Amino acid sequence: MTRFRVSLHVTPRRGLLDPQGKAVTDALHTLGFAAVRDVHVGRHIVVELDAADRPAAEREARRMCAKLLANPVTEDFEIAAVEGGAA
Amino acid sequence: MTRFRVSLHVTPRRGLLDPQGKAVTDALHTLGFAAVRDVHVGRHIVVELDAADRPAAEREARRMCAKLLANPVTEDFEIAAVEGGAA
Repeated sequence: MTRFRVSLHVTPRRGLLDPQGKAVTDALHTLGFAAVRDVHVGRHIVVELDAADRPAAEREARRMCAKLLANPVTEDFEIAAVEGGAA
Repeated sequence: MTRFRVSLHVTPRRGLLDPQGKAVTDALHTLGFAAVRDVHVGRHIVVELDAADRPAAEREARRMCAKLLANPVTEDFEIAAVEGGAA
């Protein structure tokens, strides 16, 4: 077993309301950042786990997203990076 | 002015307590993901903004992190990607 470090992005599904992103956009405008057009706020999750190889680590991370880390109704997730291991 | 899309990661500073990461680690263990060693939970923020060029877009994003998006006492931020524009 090798230690892997999987980075995940969990983001509000496009087309759904993103009240946190809207609030940040408004706050940035108030602070003088007039060039800001839109902001989306999601979660950046880094999971360190032991796995046989890189595909296995990614597969486990996807299962974690489906079962706990992302809300399947309102959020999308993507594997941003898998680090560690030899291959 | 060109439209750019800057992706930011805001993460709890290493060495500080990360109670959300600890809670997710415990929940994953409870769900049977025994191979999980550690989890860190931060924010993934995507800012769409107009800027003259790519360095200007990145500079503005750093200013936003320093002024609003990241807590300078407990969090670190990094620019994960800058998309858009020609150069």
